[in-house]
Amino acid sequence: MFEGPVQDLIDELGKLPGIGPKSAQRIAFHLLSVEPSDIDRLTAVLAKVRDGVRFCEVCGNVSDAERCRICADSRRDLAQICVVEEPKDVAAIERTREFRGRYHVLGGALDPLSGIGPEQLRVRELLNRVGERIDGVDVNEVIIATDPNTEGEATATYLVRMLRDIPGLSVTRLASGLPMGGDLEFADELTLGRAFTGRRAMA
Amino acid sequence: MFEGPVQDLIDELGKLPGIGPKSAQRIAFHLLSVEPSDIDRLTAVLAKVRDGVRFCEVCGNVSDAERCRICADSRRDLAQICVVEEPKDVAAIERTREFRGRYHVLGGALDPLSGIGPEQLRVRELLNRVGERIDGVDVNEVIIATDPNTEGEATATYLVRMLRDIPGLSVTRLASGLPMGGDLEFADELTLGRAFTGRRAMA
Repeated sequence: MFEGPVQDLIDELGKLPGIGPKSAQRIAFHLLSVEPSDIDRLTAVLAKVRDGVRFCEVCGNVSDAERCRICADSRRDLAQICVVEEPKDVAAIERTREFRGRYHVLGGALDPLSGIGPEQLRVRELLNRVGERIDGVDVNEVIIATDPNTEGEATATYLVRMLRDIPGLSVTRLASGLPMGGDLEFADELTLGRAFTGRRAMA
Repeated sequence: MFEGPVQDLIDELGKLPGIGPKSAQRIAFHLLSVEPSDIDRLTAVLAKVRDGVRFCEVCGNVSDAERCRICADSRRDLAQICVVEEPKDVAAIERTREFRGRYHVLGGALDPLSGIGPEQLRVRELLNRVGERIDGVDVNEVIIATDPNTEGEATATYLVRMLRDIPGLSVTRLASGLPMGGDLEFADELTLGRAFTGRRAMA
């Protein structure tokens, strides 16, 4: 619809997730009107990301150094490991301020149809961490925080099977149920069913 | 929340229009997983846009050459000029396939509070085009297609004042009224009022 680099830019932006043709056009024309230095900053960080982002050697989260800030923080509880699929899940849990242990990023979830088995995930690294005594502390809880969908549930089931026979280790799973601030009437059957089976005694 | 270039990328993406923190994060992690060549293509078009996009010397639309494809197309009607605010408005009207004339892109709308007067828009160029006889053809209609909002209406009023005394020229404005596929009940008062004053005889 447009000519030259403007259309090329709209096409490239339109390949990004969640950006439709209208948003791509809006962003492209915005970029036509900004200072060249603003575009330079964007291309510079894109180049850095392309040249490789580092991952923490302990937990697999994105990191600036060999160890991420969480794994390098001596105030974090070494006895608890929270297992998540992706680095963005770490960010989501950190925002809750509910967890003071450390993380383990699997790098995805089991999905045999896409060829993703335990070998493609950082499962071996997790078993090594759980087996090790770190600074005189044994890991005593693994909290499985994979997504509450088919792949995430399958991954959780698999991890429980791998971990359940380790003495002194409790393996837990994040609660499923009604989202806070939601409306019972609008909950899907699966969520409402989980909320029932997971009901807690109040008195 | 993240470390290093990933967070920098999220920050830069979050400055783009219509991209909130969640979308920025989603796009950044998408870019972590694509081929380096995909990122190279994006940075290459960004660099091209930064180094300057050309504008058609006739109509002011974005262009690959001195004249855009529409102005260079001899099958387009030279007698009609449709005046729009921005290049994206040209794209929107072209999609309707209702107009076979040529365009004039003002580069914005009058907005005295932001310091945008007639001098900041391509108004003089429009008057020159209307005054010229091109390839033996006089311009006989100027269709004003500025946005139906305060600035666009003010611009339309101003252009009508500049153009109305030119002999043999009709100046028209796109119809305002109820959007097609919409619901009368949900139309705002201004739109419904315009639909009334602009009502057409059916029989």
